[in-house]
Amino acid sequence: MCLIMEDDDDGVVLVSPSNFSMVEDGIYRSGFPQPENFGFLKTLNLRSIIYLCPEPYPEENLKFLEANNIKLFQFGIEGKTDPPTPMPKDTVLDALKVLVDVRNHPILIHCKRGKHRTGCLVGCLRKVQSWCLSSVLEEYQKNAGLKWRQRDLKFIETFDIVSLRQCLLSIMYRYHGYGFKRRRLLNEEENVQKLKPQAAKV
Amino acid sequence: MCLIMEDDDDGVVLVSPSNFSMVEDGIYRSGFPQPENFGFLKTLNLRSIIYLCPEPYPEENLKFLEANNIKLFQFGIEGKTDPPTPMPKDTVLDALKVLVDVRNHPILIHCKRGKHRTGCLVGCLRKVQSWCLSSVLEEYQKNAGLKWRQRDLKFIETFDIVSLRQCLLSIMYRYHGYGFKRRRLLNEEENVQKLKPQAAKV
Repeated sequence: MCLIMEDDDDGVVLVSPSNFSMVEDGIYRSGFPQPENFGFLKTLNLRSIIYLCPEPYPEENLKFLEANNIKLFQFGIEGKTDPPTPMPKDTVLDALKVLVDVRNHPILIHCKRGKHRTGCLVGCLRKVQSWCLSSVLEEYQKNAGLKWRQRDLKFIETFDIVSLRQCLLSIMYRYHGYGFKRRRLLNEEENVQKLKPQAAKV
Repeated sequence: MCLIMEDDDDGVVLVSPSNFSMVEDGIYRSGFPQPENFGFLKTLNLRSIIYLCPEPYPEENLKFLEANNIKLFQFGIEGKTDPPTPMPKDTVLDALKVLVDVRNHPILIHCKRGKHRTGCLVGCLRKVQSWCLSSVLEEYQKNAGLKWRQRDLKFIETFDIVSLRQCLLSIMYRYHGYGFKRRRLLNEEENVQKLKPQAAKV
């Protein structure tokens, strides 16, 4: 009946990674996880991590992933600001494809501080979810704090999600056949009949 | 296989309430929802709302709740800052009891701006979940932004969760009998046997 909680009789406290928050059921975001965060991460039962920096993953983190059977998806996006490197659209699109695949959930997205690269990826996800632009940008800014960047907002605004939608539809068709849309409609009709058996018989 | 998404062929965009974020599976937080946010709120399939202000709920919002079968739990906490009113511990405790009861989920917590009253309630929930204090305060500050208040941090730090834990245990006992802890252990043993049928027969 109640939320499952850790029993703190043994005095264990959970240290979340910096800038941690929940994005959706089975999707989390944060700054770079440190070994002190591993206990916290275990409670999320992660299946995968999307890591958005080009630097190699630290040995200690790799060991944690191996011990907990967590798959690492690395998309090396430069974080340098001098000179500023533009966010690579194709790489973000590839990361999005991994992110929306529920076979990879629960999943944690992180870069270094969980602000810019992570913020752009989550912003693009929100566009796919039909969030209006001001809602998307408010969430980006809340997580970036005083470090928010105008060029990230522009990247999110101009990011084209049509190619992702096409990719998603092609996956649906591959798994469900080209009658997918029609079948979904038929299922809905069946449900209506189940809900209203008397009306259906008339 | 993929996240369920709204089909935006009809151009509908979803406007989240101000300062919206997800707290846990089935728990959301935000500022005061406006009519323009009702479409967004529908996608959350809410069962309840915890409203933390003393002011009556607007007629338009009440109609939305009724039409969508959403239960309202109101805990009138004063938000005045001149003079500052202390956060009432008993009221926060009562709200916490509603919040951790999964029969009320999915649930949205909101006050006016989703910063102070909502931030204190979520902070207390995190303590119940054994989050360390610095993680709790980081989350509070991220959502309060520049408006964060020292006295809220002090309230969260000194909030005593022992009485809530006692209440939760009494609920567990009421629903599961006093053999609850022992039965849970037995269930775990049974699961081990199911996983290792050969070993169990030896």
